[in-house]
Amino acid sequence: MGVHTYFKSLSDLEHLYRLPGKFKFQSHTVAAHSFKVTKIAQFLGTVEEMNGKNVNWRSLYEKALNHDYAELFTGDIKTPVKYATVELKELFSQVEEQMARKFIEAEFPEEFHDAYLNRFKEGKDNTLEGRILSVADKIDLLYEAYGEILKRNPDPLFFEIYEEALNTILKFQELHSVKYFIHHIMPDMLAEKFMPHSELRDLTERIISRHE
Amino acid sequence: MGVHTYFKSLSDLEHLYRLPGKFKFQSHTVAAHSFKVTKIAQFLGTVEEMNGKNVNWRSLYEKALNHDYAELFTGDIKTPVKYATVELKELFSQVEEQMARKFIEAEFPEEFHDAYLNRFKEGKDNTLEGRILSVADKIDLLYEAYGEILKRNPDPLFFEIYEEALNTILKFQELHSVKYFIHHIMPDMLAEKFMPHSELRDLTERIISRHE
Amino acid sequence: MGVHTYFKSLSDLEHLYRLPGKFKFQSHTVAAHSFKVTKIAQFLGTVEEMNGKNVNWRSLYEKALNHDYAELFTGDIKTPVKYATVELKELFSQVEEQMARKFIEAEFPEEFHDAYLNRFKEGKDNTLEGRILSVADKIDLLYEAYGEILKRNPDPLFFEIYEEALNTILKFQELHSVKYFIHHIMPDMLAEKFMPHSELRDLTERIISRHE
Amino acid sequence: MGVHTYFKSLSDLEHLYRLPGKFKFQSHTVAAHSFKVTKIAQFLGTVEEMNGKNVNWRSLYEKALNHDYAELFTGDIKTPVKYATVELKELFSQVEEQMARKFIEAEFPEEFHDAYLNRFKEGKDNTLEGRILSVADKIDLLYEAYGEILKRNPDPLFFEIYEEALNTILKFQELHSVKYFIHHIMPDMLAEKFMPHSELRDLTERIISRHE
Amino acid sequence: MGVHTYFKSLSDLEHLYRLPGKFKFQSHTVAAHSFKVTKIAQFLGTVEEMNGKNVNWRSLYEKALNHDYAELFTGDIKTPVKYATVELKELFSQVEEQMARKFIEAEFPEEFHDAYLNRFKEGKDNTLEGRILSVADKIDLLYEAYGEILKRNPDPLFFEIYEEALNTILKFQELHSVKYFIHHIMPDMLAEKFMPHSELRDLTERIISRHE
Amino acid sequence: MGVHTYFKSLSDLEHLYRLPGKFKFQSHTVAAHSFKVTKIAQFLGTVEEMNGKNVNWRSLYEKALNHDYAELFTGDIKTPVKYATVELKELFSQVEEQMARKFIEAEFPEEFHDAYLNRFKEGKDNTLEGRILSVADKIDLLYEAYGEILKRNPDPLFFEIYEEALNTILKFQELHSVKYFIHHIMPDMLAEKFMPHSELRDLTERIISRHE
Repeated sequence: MGVHTYFKSLSDLEHLYRLPGKFKFQSHTVAAHSFKVTKIAQFLGTVEEMNGKNVNWRSLYEKALNHDYAELFTGDIKTPVKYATVELKELFSQVEEQMARKFIEAEFPEEFHDAYLNRFKEGKDNTLEGRILSVADKIDLLYEAYGEILKRNPDPLFFEIYEEALNTILKFQELHSVKYFIHHIMPDMLAEKFMPHSELRDLTERIISRHE
Repeated sequence: MGVHTYFKSLSDLEHLYRLPGKFKFQSHTVAAHSFKVTKIAQFLGTVEEMNGKNVNWRSLYEKALNHDYAELFTGDIKTPVKYATVELKELFSQVEEQMARKFIEAEFPEEFHDAYLNRFKEGKDNTLEGRILSVADKIDLLYEAYGEILKRNPDPLFFEIYEEALNTILKFQELHSVKYFIHHIMPDMLAEKFMPHSELRDLTERIISRHE
Repeated sequence: MGVHTYFKSLSDLEHLYRLPGKFKFQSHTVAAHSFKVTKIAQFLGTVEEMNGKNVNWRSLYEKALNHDYAELFTGDIKTPVKYATVELKELFSQVEEQMARKFIEAEFPEEFHDAYLNRFKEGKDNTLEGRILSVADKIDLLYEAYGEILKRNPDPLFFEIYEEALNTILKFQELHSVKYFIHHIMPDMLAEKFMPHSELRDLTERIISRHE
Repeated sequence: MGVHTYFKSLSDLEHLYRLPGKFKFQSHTVAAHSFKVTKIAQFLGTVEEMNGKNVNWRSLYEKALNHDYAELFTGDIKTPVKYATVELKELFSQVEEQMARKFIEAEFPEEFHDAYLNRFKEGKDNTLEGRILSVADKIDLLYEAYGEILKRNPDPLFFEIYEEALNTILKFQELHSVKYFIHHIMPDMLAEKFMPHSELRDLTERIISRHE
Repeated sequence: MGVHTYFKSLSDLEHLYRLPGKFKFQSHTVAAHSFKVTKIAQFLGTVEEMNGKNVNWRSLYEKALNHDYAELFTGDIKTPVKYATVELKELFSQVEEQMARKFIEAEFPEEFHDAYLNRFKEGKDNTLEGRILSVADKIDLLYEAYGEILKRNPDPLFFEIYEEALNTILKFQELHSVKYFIHHIMPDMLAEKFMPHSELRDLTERIISRHE
Repeated sequence: MGVHTYFKSLSDLEHLYRLPGKFKFQSHTVAAHSFKVTKIAQFLGTVEEMNGKNVNWRSLYEKALNHDYAELFTGDIKTPVKYATVELKELFSQVEEQMARKFIEAEFPEEFHDAYLNRFKEGKDNTLEGRILSVADKIDLLYEAYGEILKRNPDPLFFEIYEEALNTILKFQELHSVKYFIHHIMPDMLAEKFMPHSELRDLTERIISRHE
């Protein structure tokens, strides 16, 4: 019943967990993921702008904010299913689009239809903003996998996700922001030291002797 | 890597939550749902047997235990998507079947292929056992919705689920077990009284005066 | 250690729960809240634009996305404490600002300092975008309280929050978007019917009789 | 391995949930329960002292703090099992005591044995402090049940627990603190109003009209 | 109130957590455990059948599905308590049996009494099916412990559980299915490699260089 | 509304999580922390008494039980904020005290004011009991950090907390109980072995060969 339904639906994204069916130390909701992707896109856009690119900020923020909203209609379909055959992928895109259209027409007054049809469209197109979104989406996924690996999740799946995410990011290496990520951010990620449990004894002794 | 992978995958069903993207007071995993459906099917089968029907118990238990295992491969696809068009439904079924086959061939030694291909097949066929499974699956869904309604979940979705589940159950009303459910179990469900908060004062006074 | 630390810190907002120390049926993280506020601000901005206002979208999105990031440095200080005395409020603001500055200088390369100092500034200023943020922040808070009231949270606190949020929104009633919210969105919110548990019996009987 | 093991075991009480196997809106750990019982006992002791009774505070605090520690050894055995027969109850008590003794002898240096054997003894004896503990334990249980009833938990179990707890408290009505609880605390509990959802519309209209 | 109460009680098993009072990375409910034990028993039964044994499938499934239902009546009593003395163990078995009988007589119509008394009996007898249940129960326990060890749970308890479970399984090594488990499944479990965090850098470099 | 409000507020401490905004494997509430600090203080007091010190047990228990209650009024303010400037720290203490006073005067009948004003005062003074509280508070914090380090939390924060806690404890090394902790408890903590995953294979082989 109107925009109220749309506002309420935003909270449903807080109940949609990413990567269901797998043990994770840390779970992420689609709402939080959308937030983080938008913040990462903001940083990437800043790098592009510093390098003389013209960023359409309104478009970038809209793409990032809305890029996973359609999961409310479709649920979380595993990628191998979605991409099993070209035919299925096509059909699936059509269904997703129809459902978004139906939702907008049912809930929004007519004057908002164009704006929201536009916002619910697939954002990962070939514009600079579309490519930044593709990268930002994968950077957050890479951080999710990295977080599990760092916490020693024994499931090799997270190495596979890390690898797949990095591969996709590198497909966009003509972007200044991707170069920046690879050369200035990832080295810090990989340099992170994990102080082993065995150093606890040394640390303790150093502290105690300092007090004697 | 073999049956070990299959055994480990059982635990993934403990991480697959039913009805994602919706606020629920009480969440249910696919593992727990499978357990409850099997127990309900056991009861329904008992009623059929008492009424002279010949129940193939081995088949009934296998159907019930395995009926949602394929969600591990496909994720939880929302029903309106799955059934959006006949074509899409067909394609999805094919993909699901291929994935199950691929998993079995990758993980099980050859001597187990037939047994597990059979176990992973769609169980809701027209046999007595297939129909009992269809009913048991919906009875558990009805109980899930009923639990939310009883706890005063304000989302009208749960009334819709309750209604849809009951409608499906009633399509099988030629079964003795469905008649039993409608005439001997549902009345108790609907008779459940919910003592209102306002009775707390009376109860308290009765207890106190009894001690004076 | 650089932007990597900043990217990682985004995930900390997924561990910061709003309104700690109170029983809630549904918890909300600062990450999810920031997402929802940005989406609400997007809608409000759209209404302003339709009414001939000139919206600086880049500014609006930046304000909304970043408005609670500083809670990472300060923790969640209860409002009555923060506003206990004018002096304390002033001091807190200074400390908050210093901490944000220190973080930016420690983690970001110099070329990003200006951009991020600007992004971390208090966004609720007197510009159109600042006022939209003030309203969007309170609309999400109002929805949080409304969600608890609808689920029958017995704590009167949620009525107080609802009231305080609505009062603040109405202070901005010169905005077209606030008028729109009051006249076209809130009526739907208040019209929401909650089908009582007692209707379950009727519903059930109607369904059963339809099948007979 | 010594007192370290004892210190670590305190955290295990944070993983022991009260009333397992039942849906609750709000769960309580044995650690939190022990804290609350001790704080309630503190209040009850204060009332006794104000009425001229001599309270052995050290004993009262020790009894309250330790009264459920033995659940670490025994698990949470349902009351109807524990009290099924006099013989069983007796045997259980013996086993519980033996286990506590074994733990103390294994983990504590000898000079602490007496102190801890004493602390792990059943605290609900006939002393003033023992009776205060019995009451405080039931007041916290009554609050747990009351919390569920207020949140509209439909399980009649919580009414039964409320009733049982109140009955037990009233068995100690010769205590000043029980009289105080019944006459000065419970009336406030029962007077708590729950503003119904339907008042939301009125409240909203009052606020809006105030701003016009 | 009848079978409705029984159906509702199935959901209580979703609120009964195994191994309470201990920190675990991954918790398991009795409902999910019952599901997994039944699926494991299915596999073990298949192996027996392939080796010429005659499996009573109905009995096997019934034993596996119901083997922990009685915990609803008794709670989770720690094993050292249950087995502290022969006398206690005996008394305890009697109480458990009485409670199951009482429940069945209170909730089930008379025509179901025999079927359910039979289903609630201790399933771990000396039949082939009883022995398969004993093994399947311990295999799931072994997987639970293994999961914690793999995730680096520092509590030595999980090594003890792993050891105890394996010892019990080996007591049934005359079974073909136990031989199969030891010789064809466990080797895969033990061969599982855990890619160390330190390989992340190499992996990253390999991926990046591939894209250059 | 009276003591009832105070009793209810105890449960709010079960909803206040320590160290918000950081990923932890194991979360701790303020209620559980208060319980553990009181139990640790009990042990430390016992050591002092054994060494001839005169412990005021009533005071020690009161200090420990109440030491974090004021967080209900203030929320969890991050330490660097609280201590950013001397002025802020002072102002903050004043506000905290005013709020506690206001709460007591609003909720407690007058005859309880003195007792509770006293109980809500800062407990970490220079008395023996105040110093024991300071140590017990840090020992529990040290155990919290130790628990994360043992579970391999990769965040270096927990090493910093461990170090800070130990440093504070050592500032009280004139206390017999601190000496006891350093010389008799910490060595056991540091000696804890963590059986590596790689020993699983050896263990398994030893068990299997024992059964052959």
